[in-house]
Amino acid sequence: MRFFSDNAAPACPAVMDAIQSANCQTAAYDGDEWSQRLDAAFSDLFETEVRAFWVTTGTAANCLALAALCPPHGSILTHEMAHIEQDEAGAPGFFTHGAKLTLLEGKGAKIPPAAIDEAVGRVRKDVHQVQPRALSITNATEYGQSYSAAEVAAIGEMARKHDLGFHMDGARFANAVAFRGESPADLTWKAGVQALSFGFIKNGGMNAEALILFDTDLYGLVEVMKKRSGHLSSKGRYAAAQILAMLDDDLWLDNARAANRAAALLGEACGNRLNLPVEANELFVAMSADEAASLRAQGFDFYDWGPGEVRLVTSWNQDMSEVEKLAEAIRSL
Amino acid sequence: MRFFSDNAAPACPAVMDAIQSANCQTAAYDGDEWSQRLDAAFSDLFETEVRAFWVTTGTAANCLALAALCPPHGSILTHEMAHIEQDEAGAPGFFTHGAKLTLLEGKGAKIPPAAIDEAVGRVRKDVHQVQPRALSITNATEYGQSYSAAEVAAIGEMARKHDLGFHMDGARFANAVAFRGESPADLTWKAGVQALSFGFIKNGGMNAEALILFDTDLYGLVEVMKKRSGHLSSKGRYAAAQILAMLDDDLWLDNARAANRAAALLGEACGNRLNLPVEANELFVAMSADEAASLRAQGFDFYDWGPGEVRLVTSWNQDMSEVEKLAEAIRSL
Amino acid sequence: MRFFSDNAAPACPAVMDAIQSANCQTAAYDGDEWSQRLDAAFSDLFETEVRAFWVTTGTAANCLALAALCPPHGSILTHEMAHIEQDEAGAPGFFTHGAKLTLLEGKGAKIPPAAIDEAVGRVRKDVHQVQPRALSITNATEYGQSYSAAEVAAIGEMARKHDLGFHMDGARFANAVAFRGESPADLTWKAGVQALSFGFIKNGGMNAEALILFDTDLYGLVEVMKKRSGHLSSKGRYAAAQILAMLDDDLWLDNARAANRAAALLGEACGNRLNLPVEANELFVAMSADEAASLRAQGFDFYDWGPGEVRLVTSWNQDMSEVEKLAEAIRSL
Amino acid sequence: MRFFSDNAAPACPAVMDAIQSANCQTAAYDGDEWSQRLDAAFSDLFETEVRAFWVTTGTAANCLALAALCPPHGSILTHEMAHIEQDEAGAPGFFTHGAKLTLLEGKGAKIPPAAIDEAVGRVRKDVHQVQPRALSITNATEYGQSYSAAEVAAIGEMARKHDLGFHMDGARFANAVAFRGESPADLTWKAGVQALSFGFIKNGGMNAEALILFDTDLYGLVEVMKKRSGHLSSKGRYAAAQILAMLDDDLWLDNARAANRAAALLGEACGNRLNLPVEANELFVAMSADEAASLRAQGFDFYDWGPGEVRLVTSWNQDMSEVEKLAEAIRSL
Repeated sequence: MRFFSDNAAPACPAVMDAIQSANCQTAAYDGDEWSQRLDAAFSDLFETEVRAFWVTTGTAANCLALAALCPPHGSILTHEMAHIEQDEAGAPGFFTHGAKLTLLEGKGAKIPPAAIDEAVGRVRKDVHQVQPRALSITNATEYGQSYSAAEVAAIGEMARKHDLGFHMDGARFANAVAFRGESPADLTWKAGVQALSFGFIKNGGMNAEALILFDTDLYGLVEVMKKRSGHLSSKGRYAAAQILAMLDDDLWLDNARAANRAAALLGEACGNRLNLPVEANELFVAMSADEAASLRAQGFDFYDWGPGEVRLVTSWNQDMSEVEKLAEAIRSL
Repeated sequence: MRFFSDNAAPACPAVMDAIQSANCQTAAYDGDEWSQRLDAAFSDLFETEVRAFWVTTGTAANCLALAALCPPHGSILTHEMAHIEQDEAGAPGFFTHGAKLTLLEGKGAKIPPAAIDEAVGRVRKDVHQVQPRALSITNATEYGQSYSAAEVAAIGEMARKHDLGFHMDGARFANAVAFRGESPADLTWKAGVQALSFGFIKNGGMNAEALILFDTDLYGLVEVMKKRSGHLSSKGRYAAAQILAMLDDDLWLDNARAANRAAALLGEACGNRLNLPVEANELFVAMSADEAASLRAQGFDFYDWGPGEVRLVTSWNQDMSEVEKLAEAIRSL
Repeated sequence: MRFFSDNAAPACPAVMDAIQSANCQTAAYDGDEWSQRLDAAFSDLFETEVRAFWVTTGTAANCLALAALCPPHGSILTHEMAHIEQDEAGAPGFFTHGAKLTLLEGKGAKIPPAAIDEAVGRVRKDVHQVQPRALSITNATEYGQSYSAAEVAAIGEMARKHDLGFHMDGARFANAVAFRGESPADLTWKAGVQALSFGFIKNGGMNAEALILFDTDLYGLVEVMKKRSGHLSSKGRYAAAQILAMLDDDLWLDNARAANRAAALLGEACGNRLNLPVEANELFVAMSADEAASLRAQGFDFYDWGPGEVRLVTSWNQDMSEVEKLAEAIRSL
Repeated sequence: MRFFSDNAAPACPAVMDAIQSANCQTAAYDGDEWSQRLDAAFSDLFETEVRAFWVTTGTAANCLALAALCPPHGSILTHEMAHIEQDEAGAPGFFTHGAKLTLLEGKGAKIPPAAIDEAVGRVRKDVHQVQPRALSITNATEYGQSYSAAEVAAIGEMARKHDLGFHMDGARFANAVAFRGESPADLTWKAGVQALSFGFIKNGGMNAEALILFDTDLYGLVEVMKKRSGHLSSKGRYAAAQILAMLDDDLWLDNARAANRAAALLGEACGNRLNLPVEANELFVAMSADEAASLRAQGFDFYDWGPGEVRLVTSWNQDMSEVEKLAEAIRSL
């Protein structure tokens, strides 16, 4: 019974069907009908005109956005636990040609707006110091916390104040939308976000994420950088089709709600063991090594986050009977 | 009736089945059973121990190999019509951090060994000039020509003589093997090739190419550069599975033979119109604008290569009745 | 008797005096009075408002300019014999983060305007090909040829037509001005040049070149790239002072005239041996190995340019009696 | 009376003489006799065979060393107040093609050995995290503290344990040697240092620093990177000559002792105001805004380091009567 990672889950049936439908003779690269429909589909979803790219990884989505928002000699403010800092092998440095990540602190991997003010304030405005040029937050965060639209807007206000490009890593954006019950528009461009990495793979996709540009002036630059970094697949239709399938009838939201529901149910079982509230599909749970071993002996698989702490992740296809078994097992510890 | 590009063809049935089979709960990144089998499968095929990566584009395969073989301050000798020079948006410069492509000439996009000697000889061995460090050939070439094992070995000899890393862009390697009837081993590592971009997408795959390292010492470096360039997909199983499916029972070779057969048949029809012999699945055909228009009026789609020249490309799934119709139409011009 | 390289000559007395005068307690980096006077001094010389930097090498001047004019994914059109291609160890690739040099041909290392048109015309306007974004010419060229103001303007017209940034490598700009007798303004910004590497070191300076920005909007970017590439010396006054000393009373022009005069005198002696006309301070002279040996036996030092060709270079301080001796010796061959 | 920065001081007489002596006709780049003597001179000083480069800035020395010791995908451990992090405009990211600086804490900008162990221990040994590959310390530090040979060796031990390249930024190395009274060898290669940026400019030089390679295998790589980054001056003799002049009769050490002596005298006057002990030529002194204003009114110039703290810097040529005046003025506050 896997509670290890949402990357371990299969693709959902609609995605598999879409792949099959796209398996025809058509134009190469992004000249096919599916790729051509992406802009409109996301513009509908976000209630404004956007430009959208399929890419094959979240790292590519994040780093193309960052490279469009920050020059090589600038710095990107981000949380010290952000995926771009912790888990992308230095990809931001590669795509931006050496821009720096300036690391901020904050509970649950959320950035307090004041931390931005303070970090910018510490930098002398001269040619010797690296000047902050962009800002990246993750929603839902790497610790399963989510920003409300108002919280994103408060950060967006800081970005405007200090003239910082504003990127959101939305590897679990669907889970944040599902938890907050606020609109995709409110959580992004209305709050000042210029580029969003919109994750599908963890949420029932196969191998396509989307990069959404609310600042459509960035389109030309991202288009060429995507090709130049080897991310323009020659049969792009399979990527576009799976994304469109997940947008249809808000499947992306249904999947995220299912994962969140499972997480919420586990959260209730964990009670005081929760180190952070459950606001998406990840739980960080205080647990001794013996307790963890006992759960594993009962067939549950999960990640040891650190001494005395485990991480549980639920997926779009989580078997609810297994969830209930785990909840019960945790209560019985 | 499409003779425009092999990237326009669908994925073949075995690939679609493999994708379906891989659609299960399993380990993320390349921890799944399919990814774990790649090294062994390619080691069998090449009759030596190799390390193999799935990547999503040929550009990524080429440029990861080049970055492993050439330092930022070196140059890569290649043909002036090579894909890495003409069609990758400067990706080699990006992945290598600024290494230079030194361009060689040769009929049909093939590099004569003497051209390597000459190019290296022109460079002063001092710190002011960029020193050649690697060499990249394409087999089959961008003009549908193929190198024999002996020809590759002659180039490999030059690479050894001048201490150049040796990469082969095999976007259509299958077509070259099919045409030459020589073994994958003879056409690569036995001839000195250290890294091969082994193409599957144009040959019936969906969205996975392979990068094969014969120089297995390069593995660690390529592994981290692949992640750092955003090319480590979180659900790698779909990539690995489709490649394995094409290796099974030499499907890759059957597909290439089918495409080559169609091309050969068209080649006979073209006769003196052929600007180059047919040695893979591409034809470069002398044709006036009026003649091209006439063929298009009959429903045939293809690419205008230049004034008075068109390019025809056949695919693994080319309908032979359509091929015969086109052959007939060309004869009737 | 050295006719080998103008880099071998000493610094001229005024420069040595200026270094001495600047040897005082003052502000660091470019906060000193000499550095602060550069903009005004060059604005006077060029009869327009410019921004000027001291840098320590021509390579730095060239590559900072190119990096300001061309994005990483663009290409820079230049002559195949240009210093940036032949003698800078790939520095343009380093400073631009991988931009490509597209090489043009032309007699005497001069670029014919039509070659620019043709090179741009060969590039498809799509995301697969590297798009030309900048253009660099050298005046005087690496072969001692010079462009007239009208010739520069014709190239500038091409730059405007194709929206290319326009850089001039003026390592021997003084020699070109001296030969042409046209104004610095006419030879640069009035002809469309946006950035000029203005050489002083070969012309009697010690270790400072100037980078002149006619497009003053580039100032902020170049300023930060200069620091980021390690080219902001902490005691900049010595660089600024030597440049100012050479601008005083047109010393730069006097020095260049002296070198050109020596070259012209040698040119007359060479007669039909000249492979190119003498338009600056370099001569490319047809000469057999035996003849060259004979001159060397008489104490003349110079560079073997290639089989049957030698290069003679004259300097600001060339001893005219030695020049006459060499002239005589060449006549006597 | 300037106590603002050692970069504001003039070059010392021996350096000016050396510049004058080197002002002759000779070989270009580093083919002159002065440049050719550097290796031997530094090998003598360090009692082992070293390779030495002149470079024009400390940033260049630091970043060439770092780029030789750390691949683009690695990280460099350094103090959060290190010059490479705080004052080089992101140059390490530029020269290393995007390597990351991992920031450590420690009093007085000194790195405790345990902090290295801890930082390395936090990194998972997988492809997702950036692996530490190099380590850089500054001696004397940016806060005027110095490491003893034993302290450097303890850090060197950590470098060996974790397979980290080991660089020392010695912008004020002379001051550290003078304060510690230990040999240059003991403070560097005997303690595991592989590359040293040896500063001369702050210590009475004009515009040349040295980069010393104890790991002589790095020579070829640094040589080409130095050229490629525009740091190979065409008249290198002026750089080499001034460095040699400072090595003669240990002038570098005499100059540093003079500066340290002045600092020590001020330190005594500061007493409890000292926020850190005086171990080189910089003092960090607790002082109210009113007190600072009072000193300035008496003609003393210095830097406001932060609220309630000023920085005093002494130079090789500090007028001791001015030092005594400042000491007296501080005592009288």
